[in-house]
Amino acid sequence: MAHEFTLVRQVEFSETDMAGIVHFSNFFRYMEAAEHAFFRSLGFSIHTSDPERVGWPRVHASCDFRHPLRFEDSVEIRLLVREKREKSLAYSFIFRKLNETSPIEVARGTLKVVCVKREAANGKMTSVAIPAEIAGKIEAAPAELLAS
Amino acid sequence: MAHEFTLVRQVEFSETDMAGIVHFSNFFRYMEAAEHAFFRSLGFSIHTSDPERVGWPRVHASCDFRHPLRFEDSVEIRLLVREKREKSLAYSFIFRKLNETSPIEVARGTLKVVCVKREAANGKMTSVAIPAEIAGKIEAAPAELLAS
Amino acid sequence: MAHEFTLVRQVEFSETDMAGIVHFSNFFRYMEAAEHAFFRSLGFSIHTSDPERVGWPRVHASCDFRHPLRFEDSVEIRLLVREKREKSLAYSFIFRKLNETSPIEVARGTLKVVCVKREAANGKMTSVAIPAEIAGKIEAAPAELLAS
Amino acid sequence: MAHEFTLVRQVEFSETDMAGIVHFSNFFRYMEAAEHAFFRSLGFSIHTSDPERVGWPRVHASCDFRHPLRFEDSVEIRLLVREKREKSLAYSFIFRKLNETSPIEVARGTLKVVCVKREAANGKMTSVAIPAEIAGKIEAAPAELLAS
Repeated sequence: MAHEFTLVRQVEFSETDMAGIVHFSNFFRYMEAAEHAFFRSLGFSIHTSDPERVGWPRVHASCDFRHPLRFEDSVEIRLLVREKREKSLAYSFIFRKLNETSPIEVARGTLKVVCVKREAANGKMTSVAIPAEIAGKIEAAPAELLAS
Repeated sequence: MAHEFTLVRQVEFSETDMAGIVHFSNFFRYMEAAEHAFFRSLGFSIHTSDPERVGWPRVHASCDFRHPLRFEDSVEIRLLVREKREKSLAYSFIFRKLNETSPIEVARGTLKVVCVKREAANGKMTSVAIPAEIAGKIEAAPAELLAS
Repeated sequence: MAHEFTLVRQVEFSETDMAGIVHFSNFFRYMEAAEHAFFRSLGFSIHTSDPERVGWPRVHASCDFRHPLRFEDSVEIRLLVREKREKSLAYSFIFRKLNETSPIEVARGTLKVVCVKREAANGKMTSVAIPAEIAGKIEAAPAELLAS
Repeated sequence: MAHEFTLVRQVEFSETDMAGIVHFSNFFRYMEAAEHAFFRSLGFSIHTSDPERVGWPRVHASCDFRHPLRFEDSVEIRLLVREKREKSLAYSFIFRKLNETSPIEVARGTLKVVCVKREAANGKMTSVAIPAEIAGKIEAAPAELLAS
């Protein structure tokens, strides 16, 4: 049972804006990248038909920004499973900049995603229980980790 | 004194993802586009040296997603000023899809931005009072509008 | 029979990079936006199942950059149909910045796209003749226009 | 003296579009990422004030697309220095998908970049000779490599 995952990536030029810092919308792309890497670490793909063909649309996303990230900064994105329900998962993310003598926290974010099936005919999405094989590998992180 | 602004745009192909819908990170780009158009509607640019050289980094962003947006959907982004403080502004955003018999709300978001000066030497940002010329044109929306 | 289309758009903050100018990859998004608006001007959508379900993957894209574009610049993207073949279309694009006393050309680009059908089973794409209803509305621009 | 560099990355969800494949504009972001990693491999940053404060705007970019890339594909981007002049560099890029029994080439691209200084006053860019320290570490690839 896994409840956390850490991804490190380096800020790309195309992710910056004219203010010289990472455009805030990219923090949401970073969170999603960590979520997808978390799934791969469990042997799944977020976009899969195995064990079942489900999708994970986002129903909520938020981020608090404390310090900017700049080109070529090394950023650690730590994912914690905040909540696991029958049909949904909620994650917390802590962003730290690693290229300092001591890492500094630059942002915190959240994502809430719902497990859905898509009807082939019209693309309509219906929420469904998380497939047992996936649910069996994910658990909410201990309260003390989430409170840190 | 202005407290709201409405922008309509059409979903572009490059804003969709393999799920066939607008990637959620683009809702944050849409909010920012509405914010910048709001500033232009007041005779300012968000990135200006007139009346003073200030910037507006985001300190908080969030979005709740109810329905997907698809390619070529016409989307209305309604900005409401939720809060005006000495050094910061908070906005609410209501997204509606217009290409239906009756428009449907697809998402709601928030942005909180802080007015800063950037030191030429090292790029460090310090929060400052919103320039009087700008502050004099913006007010918080009435409570009944925000509650809707 | 149409052979040209002109789209005007305004540079968004999120399209700039830390060099203070529009990131070059966005010129390709701008070309595509003009192509899709051209299709809409003919009564079609680039992503359609009417008259037939075809797609238009890009097989070639290029751009020559002369002058930078900046935040809030007004940019005109003029599309010219350079070549029309049985299964493909080639476009030329001329980018001009309009917020000058006299507009200045900032870039020129090309796109070559192929008409394909996608097999439902495996997503494989096969090139097919452009549907007659679409082909009947598009023609190559006169040589003198393309030479300008 | 270096004349090539290879970067491997994995396709992210946000890089795909509703056709289920990587949006073509991202191939240009991939090329740039390889170029910047090439510079880092030589001990430089593309955005640097050391040894001198220069920038590298793109004057030409092109790409030929043969096969699509999909979510979670592993893609190798091989950069070759095609030409080195006093004030400019031209690169070729070969994209291969690695998650096949044998890798397949999916695209080829080019970038031509010019070394510039930016005037502090007005942001105007003037082309300058590539700083000796950088020029001394880069050479054009042998003809046989480029012809492959």
